[in-house]
Amino acid sequence: MSQLLDRVRVVLVEPSHPGNIGGAARALKTMGLSQLAVVNPKRFPDPQAEWRAAGAQDVLEATRICADLDEAIADCHWVVGTSTRNRRIPWPLLSAEQAAARMLQEAHGDVAILFGRENSGLTNEELQKCHCHLQIPASPQYPSLNLAMAVQVVCYELFKHAGDAQATSAGWDRPLATMAQVEELLRHLEAVLVSSAFLDVTNPGQTMTRLRRLLIRLRPDVTEVQMLRGVLTHLDKGS
Amino acid sequence: MSQLLDRVRVVLVEPSHPGNIGGAARALKTMGLSQLAVVNPKRFPDPQAEWRAAGAQDVLEATRICADLDEAIADCHWVVGTSTRNRRIPWPLLSAEQAAARMLQEAHGDVAILFGRENSGLTNEELQKCHCHLQIPASPQYPSLNLAMAVQVVCYELFKHAGDAQATSAGWDRPLATMAQVEELLRHLEAVLVSSAFLDVTNPGQTMTRLRRLLIRLRPDVTEVQMLRGVLTHLDKGS
Repeated sequence: MSQLLDRVRVVLVEPSHPGNIGGAARALKTMGLSQLAVVNPKRFPDPQAEWRAAGAQDVLEATRICADLDEAIADCHWVVGTSTRNRRIPWPLLSAEQAAARMLQEAHGDVAILFGRENSGLTNEELQKCHCHLQIPASPQYPSLNLAMAVQVVCYELFKHAGDAQATSAGWDRPLATMAQVEELLRHLEAVLVSSAFLDVTNPGQTMTRLRRLLIRLRPDVTEVQMLRGVLTHLDKGS
Repeated sequence: MSQLLDRVRVVLVEPSHPGNIGGAARALKTMGLSQLAVVNPKRFPDPQAEWRAAGAQDVLEATRICADLDEAIADCHWVVGTSTRNRRIPWPLLSAEQAAARMLQEAHGDVAILFGRENSGLTNEELQKCHCHLQIPASPQYPSLNLAMAVQVVCYELFKHAGDAQATSAGWDRPLATMAQVEELLRHLEAVLVSSAFLDVTNPGQTMTRLRRLLIRLRPDVTEVQMLRGVLTHLDKGS
């Protein structure tokens, strides 16, 4: 059980208030989680964070500070992003409860749950790196949970489900690609589409977003990524 | 649905930090609740509370400040208290999810959920006023949720369940007694037991706690309370 929770990484993207980082650390520890990462925080370390962390100083001290989101999730193979808005290009959407159950199923390797900025949440670009989006059920009149509160609710659902959860690696023969490997594949694909003049850099439209969604949904293994990149290299030389 | 949530009163007993009152107000509003009461707060109103309340100023401004717990729950007919410790005399214990479902069933009149002090929770005396106790599932290594976070988790469970909940008044012919009426009955009973020398005031033992638990469990209606008090008055005169 705790082994699964140790594989769930909570990622705070550009939080403004250090108190929320401390509050999140405490929320993690109360629910048996240990991996906290913070992308480009405004103020951290900070006494406010320490004060709000209370008895979770160990989680706070082990917090990874990352320069960008890609660094925070590079070694994860499944990522869910919290979202309150509806997106133009629809993405799979889960409730907090469903997302918790799914995260634990995927926890045969590291998985990540992303929480956005206090005022503006996650950007579209950040949400498009996610396999699923998560919405916490909330009042339509005022669905705006405090950042650390949202972390607490999701960690609570994870802890509730961890008791009877089991990671399902489903007997696949190769490890699934990490986010870093999928991002490299996407960059490679984009470069080839541009050099082959399929993609007009001055007017790219939603092509790359749709291809990103397709590849994220595909969940390729490492061998498949190598193979696809081999195909791209080959096609690029031929053009 | 929202009618049920409007009947659930969140009561913070002697909170030290005004930030937690504001955080609780925001937590309530995000989950469609509106009734907040605070018993004997250390600092309130306070700018910290307003800051943490964010878009829930309306809930914060409508917060009832009460001198003691009895005042905060006098007109409620069902009360649940959050608890982390095990009690010497066992009380019915529910998880946050079970308690949320039950509170909504009882919400044909006002019901209350009590949260204790940041450092020490609710006293035994306060917990003995409750029909049930509630424990939020949490890591045994560090089960200490921040006060406002605990409010958020319970309100979240209430909101999740409110969609398909229906208060079950179960076709009783008389209204159930309020907490104030049950407390009066208990005081009356104690006075009679003392004056009849059944109860030794210098060494009362757990008699009143056990009688309290019995009457709380009984859930008497107003006619039954009148009847029992009539019996007590009669016996007292006879002794």
